Amino acid sequence: VLAEEDDVKTYDLVLIGFGVVNRALARLIIEEPDRFRSLGFELRVTAIADLAMGSTISPTGIDLAAAMALPRGLTFEEIGGSSAARTEDVIRSAKADIAVEATFTNGVTGEPAASHVRWALDAGMHVVTTNKGPIALHGAELRARASADRCFLFEGSVLSGTPLLGLVRDTLAGTQITAVRGVLNGTSNFVLERMEAGERLEQSVAEAQARGYAEADPSADLNGSDVRLKVTILANELMNAGLTPDQVTTTGIESISASDIIAAARDRRRWKLIGEVHREVDGTVTASVQPVALDTDDPLIGISGATNAVSVTTDLLGPVTITGPGAGATETAFALLADIITIHSQSKDLSRA
Amino acid sequence: VLAEEDDVKTYDLVLIGFGVVNRALARLIIEEPDRFRSLGFELRVTAIADLAMGSTISPTGIDLAAAMALPRGLTFEEIGGSSAARTEDVIRSAKADIAVEATFTNGVTGEPAASHVRWALDAGMHVVTTNKGPIALHGAELRARASADRCFLFEGSVLSGTPLLGLVRDTLAGTQITAVRGVLNGTSNFVLERMEAGERLEQSVAEAQARGYAEADPSADLNGSDVRLKVTILANELMNAGLTPDQVTTTGIESISASDIIAAARDRRRWKLIGEVHREVDGTVTASVQPVALDTDDPLIGISGATNAVSVTTDLLGPVTITGPGAGATETAFALLADIITIHSQSKDLSRA
Repeated sequence: VLAEEDDVKTYDLVLIGFGVVNRALARLIIEEPDRFRSLGFELRVTAIADLAMGSTISPTGIDLAAAMALPRGLTFEEIGGSSAARTEDVIRSAKADIAVEATFTNGVTGEPAASHVRWALDAGMHVVTTNKGPIALHGAELRARASADRCFLFEGSVLSGTPLLGLVRDTLAGTQITAVRGVLNGTSNFVLERMEAGERLEQSVAEAQARGYAEADPSADLNGSDVRLKVTILANELMNAGLTPDQVTTTGIESISASDIIAAARDRRRWKLIGEVHREVDGTVTASVQPVALDTDDPLIGISGATNAVSVTTDLLGPVTITGPGAGATETAFALLADIITIHSQSKDLSRA
Repeated sequence: VLAEEDDVKTYDLVLIGFGVVNRALARLIIEEPDRFRSLGFELRVTAIADLAMGSTISPTGIDLAAAMALPRGLTFEEIGGSSAARTEDVIRSAKADIAVEATFTNGVTGEPAASHVRWALDAGMHVVTTNKGPIALHGAELRARASADRCFLFEGSVLSGTPLLGLVRDTLAGTQITAVRGVLNGTSNFVLERMEAGERLEQSVAEAQARGYAEADPSADLNGSDVRLKVTILANELMNAGLTPDQVTTTGIESISASDIIAAARDRRRWKLIGEVHREVDGTVTASVQPVALDTDDPLIGISGATNAVSVTTDLLGPVTITGPGAGATETAFALLADIITIHSQSKDLSRA
């Protein structure tokens, strides 16, 4: 029912990290400007900082096609930038509206991503990130750093582009969340499925790596620590739990044997790595990650491959489950777009306040 | 990031229909005022019109507990109202902010619900409804009737409280929807499951009726016409298709035989009544309702009983599926609350414009 507005707003972005996710966003910006215009805004990238490629700044807009065409191994020096990243300086001098953080996750310190977010928030920007490390480890601190009129959003940090956080924030307002439970790791899905087909764990992991599902070091997928970070985010952001990752009881799938798989299959049950958060009767919130042999009528039993799913149980509705991609460059870039759309709609509110 | 606002707004409601859904909303209003206050508003019912119970109006707020305590067969005359419904008069004289329409669905004319909506929109109210008939049959006309500063919302018309329409509107903005596909009828789920367990169709239907899942006349559930209305809403509201229900190719589950069920089970497939909408390459939108024997890896295969699910396929994400209740009084009342929350947030925008 809002009146149409003719003015199209331009948001200047600084991209922090120029890997597959921010490149997918850049591709959308180059190839589909109408997608953004129809939403009421244009996106212009005025700075990029990348650990490997260095940095480039242009207040009138970077030539994204040229930046993306740089052959592997070359730096932004080739297009007038610098071979050094100097991320803090880039953020401070970029004078962008929104910092788009999509570097790698460090699950122990959250760095350097957490510092990227701090610098950008301190410089008065909105910040969007797909990076689970800083949110799981420093979420409360970072949220507190954002000024009242700036957004700090991270839809892509849990389920890539599947809009779980937006679903809860925008459409489940008015309910109390009592539990969250999900399948949050595609590699462990893949490995458990291959084991159901008779492979050993080591074989399955090697195959996941060969197909590009699993990292060179797949331990975070197998030992549950990837899901632990995601569960920490869900506990804190959806249920205000104030948990740290080390408070999440965590067991990986390494302990699952061929005979466990066979025994489950006999009852048509299937093992999945399940992340769970519960509010107890006394109000405390507990969280865990562990392999569970799901019954045939469990809504999560069919979740396979790169698909993830999370069930949110509320006081008024019982479980509502959202299922969708848990990985992918374009999918994760959509999460950044979803966050930018939220910034745009909240900025309209603020400019009218 | 919006600043906290101390003022709590009061919305006056006229309840049209006083059956299980509006009673569930009334119960929330009586028992949990803090739920609404924490959202920034209070709800006060200033009028009720019900075909069986008549009508009651009180500009200072109706005693909802007294209204709900009236024994079956008595009318609002007992508490100072009238034994006649006079719905048009009640709406016009109620001077409420929001009309809450939750009467029965007529799948052929959409009446009298469509008239209720028209009267309320013409009287300048926001309108929320859980009623699929008027939306499927007169959605475009009714939407056009709403003034620019009034909302016409109907989250509960497709999946009771599962917030599918909100998910698409609020969190999938920026994507193009290419297909929608779902399991949208709990009775047919139940009947097909009982047939998988060896019962005949007639037995299964009788059991569904005995348990209160199926209506006394279950034909709309079995012949697909219930799902046809829902699919029409999805096609028009999510994909702007401009379809009428008779343009939705519809086959019910009556044609499924025991041998069909057995043949599917041999391949671990399961029959479900599937509603589907597709955008073709030339831009036209086609829609259908039919029983389909789903493969084991179909995300809808596990949807059973009163649970419903809809997969929305978009250009950026592939299918995102939302699963949750497809029926229930409190669940459907939540849809009304979700729509009122949307009205509240849009009203804040407008008051600042």
